[in-house]
Amino acid sequence: MIDLDRLIARIEQLGQVGALPGGGCKRLALTPEDAAGRALVTGWFRDLGLDVTTDVIGNTWAIRPGPGDLPPVVMGSHIDTVATGGLYDGTLGVLAGLEVIESAIEAGVETDHPLAVAFFTNEEGARFAPDMMGSGVAAGALPLDAMLASRGIDDATVDEALTAIGARGDAPVGALSPAAYLELHIEQGPVLESEGVQIGVVTGVQGISWTEFTVKGRSAHAGTTPMLMRRDAGHVAAAIAMEARAIATDFGPPQVATVGRMSLSPDLVNVVPERATLTVDLRNTDETRLAGAEARLFAFAEAAARDEGCTLTRRSLARFEPVAFDAKLVDDIATAADRLGYSHRRMPSGAGHDAQMFAPFCPSAMIFVPSRDGISHNIEEYTAPEDLERGARLLADVALARAGCRKGPRA
Amino acid sequence: MIDLDRLIARIEQLGQVGALPGGGCKRLALTPEDAAGRALVTGWFRDLGLDVTTDVIGNTWAIRPGPGDLPPVVMGSHIDTVATGGLYDGTLGVLAGLEVIESAIEAGVETDHPLAVAFFTNEEGARFAPDMMGSGVAAGALPLDAMLASRGIDDATVDEALTAIGARGDAPVGALSPAAYLELHIEQGPVLESEGVQIGVVTGVQGISWTEFTVKGRSAHAGTTPMLMRRDAGHVAAAIAMEARAIATDFGPPQVATVGRMSLSPDLVNVVPERATLTVDLRNTDETRLAGAEARLFAFAEAAARDEGCTLTRRSLARFEPVAFDAKLVDDIATAADRLGYSHRRMPSGAGHDAQMFAPFCPSAMIFVPSRDGISHNIEEYTAPEDLERGARLLADVALARAGCRKGPRA
Repeated sequence: MIDLDRLIARIEQLGQVGALPGGGCKRLALTPEDAAGRALVTGWFRDLGLDVTTDVIGNTWAIRPGPGDLPPVVMGSHIDTVATGGLYDGTLGVLAGLEVIESAIEAGVETDHPLAVAFFTNEEGARFAPDMMGSGVAAGALPLDAMLASRGIDDATVDEALTAIGARGDAPVGALSPAAYLELHIEQGPVLESEGVQIGVVTGVQGISWTEFTVKGRSAHAGTTPMLMRRDAGHVAAAIAMEARAIATDFGPPQVATVGRMSLSPDLVNVVPERATLTVDLRNTDETRLAGAEARLFAFAEAAARDEGCTLTRRSLARFEPVAFDAKLVDDIATAADRLGYSHRRMPSGAGHDAQMFAPFCPSAMIFVPSRDGISHNIEEYTAPEDLERGARLLADVALARAGCRKGPRA
Repeated sequence: MIDLDRLIARIEQLGQVGALPGGGCKRLALTPEDAAGRALVTGWFRDLGLDVTTDVIGNTWAIRPGPGDLPPVVMGSHIDTVATGGLYDGTLGVLAGLEVIESAIEAGVETDHPLAVAFFTNEEGARFAPDMMGSGVAAGALPLDAMLASRGIDDATVDEALTAIGARGDAPVGALSPAAYLELHIEQGPVLESEGVQIGVVTGVQGISWTEFTVKGRSAHAGTTPMLMRRDAGHVAAAIAMEARAIATDFGPPQVATVGRMSLSPDLVNVVPERATLTVDLRNTDETRLAGAEARLFAFAEAAARDEGCTLTRRSLARFEPVAFDAKLVDDIATAADRLGYSHRRMPSGAGHDAQMFAPFCPSAMIFVPSRDGISHNIEEYTAPEDLERGARLLADVALARAGCRKGPRA
């Protein structure tokens, strides 16, 4: 089972909603483009005769009615994109979930737990902060009222945007209560492709620490100021950037460290910078290690600023502890991949996903398929058809087993 | 001789032309504010009965008529300012020159060489590139036609701006031919103040090398891309910045190195930078050492980019060889300072000045007085009255001696 052509056709059809001239698409959360995407996908849900529910923040799920009242096994992800998004990030998890259900129906497969497919509001966080908003609210990790009041880059609130596109439902927070949560997603990184591995069995999500450092020194003439009399904010910033790299090297994988932003002021060739700001993004799957990386970085930054006669302030922009997925469910994915003959490796997710919001509340796990060149959040995003098929087949296998396949062929 | 009150009154009066609300002033070259400054200063020249001449690029000088036809001893600098200029940069050299001549006239002092005072067009380079334009043209180091065609930050050419404010004269290039050139200037750095020294005897001007590096790597997700698979342009930029500092440290004074500009692209917290640009400003008084600093920096940058899998391009934004001032004239300044009882030290100029343009063609030298907190190009620029007086008296002493004082009291 799994009709690859149908899955790809839907991915392409949804990709036409908010399509960008050069390829890829833009469906920022709760915009008219997102509304059109929601309508298309919800239409497919209804075409299959599924029970469709939308909650107060626009999360939408479709349940294949089952015989009893057991909670559903939910396959889900999101259909909003970043401003220069591709066709697979999020979309694959939703449409593969739909494909699993449609295939099961066609094959006459029955399950103890109903199968469900869901898309969650504003996973990307590209319009409204924070990201993973809808799944966070659904899982009870984020407060509904504060999320509704979140103001987007266009100054509209989530509340206003929900009303504007008619995406607000009446199901309350907590209405979706999965027996298990499974998310198929593109890797968004280069590891699987570079190692020639077909499937990533995701063990959890890295903890994330984002810090913005601001260094204040003294502007001075680049020609007339002896080196020993300088208080060069830019030098301190460069030193912190080098230390971030050194921490990643010394700690070893999976520790990563990235300086994505840096700016100097007044930003003139011949003026010693008075002020510098930079951001450091640290990630690790182990909370103790992540905290250790932060501690080393912060201590270094303080000392570097002090040595240069500068002052340092730092601000946390984001901090999430690592999330571990359900060990049994992770094992089930690996076992199923073996049975299907797919090469696989265990790996953490370096990016955040809706699955992490459900992990504290129900058995949750993720399946990764390769991203060509590791590219994502980019119109060049691409995953080959055979990888889409392997991912969807594995998702079907694990979801059906978890739901308790009672009748009909196994995937 | 030297009437300090008169000197200060003129500095303050000229500072009112283009005065900024919070202090300081803005007289960008060849703007209406510069025109008003020129009119004020030229009026003072005429009030003293000096012969005033303006050349084809607006350089203006005033000669005290003398008995013979010997070339003049010229005291000069500039009266244009940067956008947030102070009251002393340039202005002091011009108004102190005027004060020397006025005092000499009042004291009945006669000289073999006429005394002259000059201001040169667009020394700052804040509106038109390059800086030291007028003195460069006057000394024959810069081609007139190319300078007239130089387009300013407001898109006007020097030619158009000269016409617009009526600052063009009819004296040809080369009309000013000094017997010697002397320039009193604020230090624009912290050395004299920090060492408690009253006078800087300037031995020359540091050579300057400005390089812009552009590093091209590959953007990648900060969470999903292992460190060893990154091509992080920002990391290379930070490494180059650290090497610039290391070069200054290893070479020792007077080598200085400054990274004044740095920018990352796409400049997002969670994206490995695809592109980074930074500038490095290297200065040394010794050409061989300066070239050595460049060679080490360039080799390091190439290797750092290669190690990270990035490409590197570099572009020279400016390159001037060091200028040595006339050894005899420099000695004369030191001797005169001793005679006047002023503490002094020899030092290079870290900034460019009009004097360096004349250095190849006539004995030239400069005198520095302290800048409070080393601040210049800033409305907070300040030099204390007693420092102004010492500078002007020393200038008078050296200028009169060089001009051949024939009659009347010595300073």
